[in-house]
Parts: sequence; structure tokens; C-alpha cells
Amino acid sequence: MKSDNIDIVLVEPSHPGNIGGVARAMKNMGLKNLVLVKPREFPAKEAEWRAASAIDVLQNARVLSSLDEAIADKQFVVGTSARERRIPWPVQDARLAGARVCEHSAFEKVAILFGREDSGLNNDELRRCNLHCYIPTHEDYESLNLAMAVQIVCYEIRMTQLDGQLPQAQDSHWENPFATSQEMEYFFEHLEATLVDLEFLDPRAPRQLMTRLRRLYSRVRLDDMEVNILRGVLKETRRVVAENKTQK
Amino acid sequence: MKSDNIDIVLVEPSHPGNIGGVARAMKNMGLKNLVLVKPREFPAKEAEWRAASAIDVLQNARVLSSLDEAIADKQFVVGTSARERRIPWPVQDARLAGARVCEHSAFEKVAILFGREDSGLNNDELRRCNLHCYIPTHEDYESLNLAMAVQIVCYEIRMTQLDGQLPQAQDSHWENPFATSQEMEYFFEHLEATLVDLEFLDPRAPRQLMTRLRRLYSRVRLDDMEVNILRGVLKETRRVVAENKTQK
Repeated sequence: MKSDNIDIVLVEPSHPGNIGGVARAMKNMGLKNLVLVKPREFPAKEAEWRAASAIDVLQNARVLSSLDEAIADKQFVVGTSARERRIPWPVQDARLAGARVCEHSAFEKVAILFGREDSGLNNDELRRCNLHCYIPTHEDYESLNLAMAVQIVCYEIRMTQLDGQLPQAQDSHWENPFATSQEMEYFFEHLEATLVDLEFLDPRAPRQLMTRLRRLYSRVRLDDMEVNILRGVLKETRRVVAENKTQK
Repeated sequence: MKSDNIDIVLVEPSHPGNIGGVARAMKNMGLKNLVLVKPREFPAKEAEWRAASAIDVLQNARVLSSLDEAIADKQFVVGTSARERRIPWPVQDARLAGARVCEHSAFEKVAILFGREDSGLNNDELRRCNLHCYIPTHEDYESLNLAMAVQIVCYEIRMTQLDGQLPQAQDSHWENPFATSQEMEYFFEHLEATLVDLEFLDPRAPRQLMTRLRRLYSRVRLDDMEVNILRGVLKETRRVVAENKTQK
């Protein structure tokens, strides 16, 4: 992917707040080329306020008077649209379309078109596209806010770009190494001995106690430091029990 | 997934516009339970304006005075946060966290916490969570707008729910069946004969012309109606050529 090759094109946006929201959504996901075709009000204070630290994207936005100018030199044009159209067109959801955009942008100039807040892209505009892209909203309320739609598409582009680079396991960024099986066995022996000392566990009728404790600590995966802490507690417990017995 | 079991909890949101944006983002993705912990300003006109047709989500929002009340009965609590924390915690990106939420919500009560616009969730709040969730923003501008973050997480929940139900091929919703190989062979024969008639193709020195045309139409996959249209054109072309020859 080459983010310089990706233009986000807003066709006749009405609300300057949305333009600002779009600028921020883009920069959050690493995109910077914003194109505005006949915006109703731009520049505007509200756009700047909503853009927050993406003010540079707003300041560098190109304002054009026709869609033709925006896409003339583009080799792959994606139009976002609601799902159903009278004449079917090649269509994919935002995830697959985002992947296509990444792929094409490596070598080609790409534009992604977003339509008017109230009526989207018209049929003439949609016919200029190589691919239509839809976001699978819920049937109770299909209409996404413009900046939200841009956010989701830009997010999918970024997710494709990061594919395989993001950690999968929920504890992949741990500060300590996780305990080995051997360390866990020593811990369980230590634990069992302590519970016997405490007369909490009767070796002649152990029931499922150790099984349940094993299951608990296996599920959580202890790290080295946690094992040391727990074994410190066990050691101290055994010392107190032994002391008690000596005193009797 | 059971959407009734999923609460979106905003902790001390400052801007009523964001609360409205969140309500809309949720309803767009099929979620309805909004919980507000100590909102600075609510109800508010700006929230209603931004919620648009998700006004019902806003009206049914529960306003609480502490996070405890919001999560007391929850069995799985997710906290959204920036990626790096002093004490590592189980953490997954929005896609994987969304999948976990779907899975747990089938049987359990789930809350997803979103923090303050300026400072997020604090460490005490993050320690109440089973899982931390991050959205992989670009390093140039990490800070997502609150409603945008909710939009992405809700979108990922919906994508998990729809997994396998969305069409993959870009032309899976076509109104006409695609042409069979046999139909395409008849078409290519017809095309070739027409090009010979036109003396555009020399059968003694055909070069790569037909190969190139085959590659073009294979790439695009013609449907039945398109084949009929093209063959209509070929037929008419041949008729005109034949008429010309007769008149000579």
C-alpha cells in the first residue's frame, strides 16, 4: 500500500463539521489526501474544530468544481453506496474493498468517493466507479453519518496494511515470561504440601481439590513473577504452620 | 451474539455531540443499550441533533453516578484504551475484541467501556476490565474521536455477527447469469468471423489479436444479456459488410 496514492473524495458535502470529522478520521488511519467537490461551506470554523489535530489535512484539501477533475487521472475508483441499486455493479463490503484499495494503491492512483449526506452518490457518479463499496449496517437504521463511513473505510484500509503485524494473543505484550510446565509442577507440589500442612487437604481423601486448583491456574497462565509471589506466600505459610507445631 | 446483553458505557463524556454520535453509531450496527456515567451535559439538544434517527437509543440511555453501578452485574467487561500501559493487561485489537464480545454476549452480560474525550479511562477503571481493547491508529495521530472509536468497535461486533453471511465475490448479486464456456466459444467464433469479414483480422497472419480479446472478455466475465447484445452488434456488422460486398 502507498497512502500517497489514495484520495478520499467528498462529493458536495453539506456540513462543515463532517468535513472536519473526515479529516481527523483519515489522519487517525494514516491517510492525508482529502478532495472536496463543491462543498457547501468551506473553509469553516466548525470543520477546523472537528478536525482537531488533523488541521493539516484540512489545510491541504483540494477544492474542485467537478468530480471529473477529481478522478480524471485515477486508475481505480471506488464509490461508497447503499447496498441495493437498480443496475447491479461490482460490489464488495468495506473489508474487501479496503483490501483492494491497498493492493491497487501500491502501483496505481486510487480515489474513494463518498456522496452527499442526504442522498449519497447519484447514478451517474456511481457509473464512474470500478467498484462499489458498502458498509453492512443494521436494517433498523441504515444511514451512516458521512464521517463515520469514511472512518470505517479508512480503518479497513489500515487493518489490511497491518495484516499479520498485529498481535493475536491477548497477552502477547507481557512484561514477564510465562511460567514453564516444570515451574508450574513445582508450584503445584508446593501448593499441595502447604494445603496438607494446613490440614485443608486430606491426602487420604483429596477429592477434586488439586484438580480444581490446577484448572484455575492453567486458565490464567501465571508469569514467572506471579509464581514467585505465590510460592513466597506458600513458604511463609509453611513456616508459620511448622512454628505452631513446634510450640505445641 | 445477543445484542441485548451488550452495554456501551461512556465514562464521563464531556461533549453532548459525541453522546449523540455514539447513539447513532450503535444503532447503525444493531446495538441499543447506552449507559452514561456522570455525563457533563445530558440531555442536550446537540446530542439529539447528532443522534438523528437514533433518538430512541438516546431516550433509553441509563444515566448513572458511578462505574460500579454500570458493571456490577456484568460477567465480561472490556475497556478501550491506547495501546501502551505501565502494567500490561490482556489486550486485543478491536477485531478480536469484537469477536470475544459476540461470543460472550450469547450467554453473559457484557459491558464495553469508553473513557473521557481528553484522558480516556483511568488506571482504576482499566483494572476493572477482563480485557483491554485498542484500535490500531496511525502514529502520526493516535487520538480517535469518542464516537468514532465506538463506531469502529460496534462495526467489528456486527462484522463478527455477519461472518460468513456477506458475499465475497464482487459480482455475487448480479441480475443475470454469467455466460457459460460454451456460450463464450460461440461468441468468440462469431467475433472472429466478423473481424475477418471486416478485414480487421487476417486469418493468414492473425497475430495475438484473438488472444487479447479472449483475455479481455474473460477478465470481465460477460453475463447472458451482454453476450446477446454483443452478438447482436456482430450480426448487424456482418449484415452491413455483406450488403456492401453485394453492392460492389
